[in-house]
Amino acid sequence: MAQQGGCIFCRIARGEIPTNKVYEDQDVIAFLDINPASVGHTLVVSKEHFDDFTKAPKDVVSHVFQVAQLIAQACLVELKADGVNVITNIGKAAGQSIGHFHVHVIPRYANDRIGIPFGKTLSLPSDQFPQLADSIRKGLPAPKLEGK
Amino acid sequence: MAQQGGCIFCRIARGEIPTNKVYEDQDVIAFLDINPASVGHTLVVSKEHFDDFTKAPKDVVSHVFQVAQLIAQACLVELKADGVNVITNIGKAAGQSIGHFHVHVIPRYANDRIGIPFGKTLSLPSDQFPQLADSIRKGLPAPKLEGK
Repeated sequence: MAQQGGCIFCRIARGEIPTNKVYEDQDVIAFLDINPASVGHTLVVSKEHFDDFTKAPKDVVSHVFQVAQLIAQACLVELKADGVNVITNIGKAAGQSIGHFHVHVIPRYANDRIGIPFGKTLSLPSDQFPQLADSIRKGLPAPKLEGK
Repeated sequence: MAQQGGCIFCRIARGEIPTNKVYEDQDVIAFLDINPASVGHTLVVSKEHFDDFTKAPKDVVSHVFQVAQLIAQACLVELKADGVNVITNIGKAAGQSIGHFHVHVIPRYANDRIGIPFGKTLSLPSDQFPQLADSIRKGLPAPKLEGK
C-alpha cells in the first residue's frame, strides 16, 4: 500500500497520530475533523495515499463514498442532524488543505449558519452552455460508458 | 426502474426535459446545472429515483461518484480548472433543493470568490470529541466493515 512518510493522513492511517476514530477497515479510516465546521464533522480517508479524488482508482472511490454514506446515515440518526453535506475538494483552489484524498461528512442543523452556496452565483449566457458541455465531454474517455 | 412522475430529475432522465448533456449511460446522466456556481458546474444524477445520497443503494453510490470523477478529471483538463468541489447535499438544511440524489461537480478557478468554508467554524471543547465519535459509531452497522 503506497503511502507518503510525511503526509498527515498517511500517518493517521498508520496509527502514528491519535484521532477520534469513527470507523476503520482494511482500506479506509474515518475520524472527527479536529477543526470542525459542525458537530460531528468527520473525514473519511483512504489508507493508501492518493493526492486527491481525481487520482484515486475506481474501487477506492467506491469504497470511500460507501463509508461516507454509512457515516452520513449515522449522523442523521445518532446526532439528529437535519441534513448532511458530503464533500471532496480537489486542489488548493477548491479548498483542499491536505494533499491526500479525503471526504468531508458535515452534519447540518437548522439555522447553523454554515454558508455553502449552491444557488446561482454565475451569470452565464445560455448560448454558451452547449459549447461548455461539449468541452467537458471531450475530456471523458468515451461518449458512453458501459452501465454499472 | 423506480421513478417519480413529477420529479424534475426523473423527467430529465426520461428525456422529457432538454439539458446540456455531458454524459449518459444506462443508469446515470450528467448535465450542466442551469444555475451554475461556476463555469462547467455539472450535476451527476442517478436515473432511478432516490430521495438523496443516504437512500441510494451502494452500487448506485459507486457508479454516480465514478462518473463524477470522470467529469472532475475532464474539467481539470478541458476547462483548465484550478480545482474542483464534488458535493452531494442531503436534506433542505444542507441546501438540497431537488429531492433526487445528485452530485455537484463544481470546477474552481483561482480567485473565483466562491465561498465554501472548510476551516474551523465551530468552537467545540476537545473533551467532547470522544463522546461524539462514540455517538456516530453507534449508528454504523458494525464496528468494522469488511474491506472492499
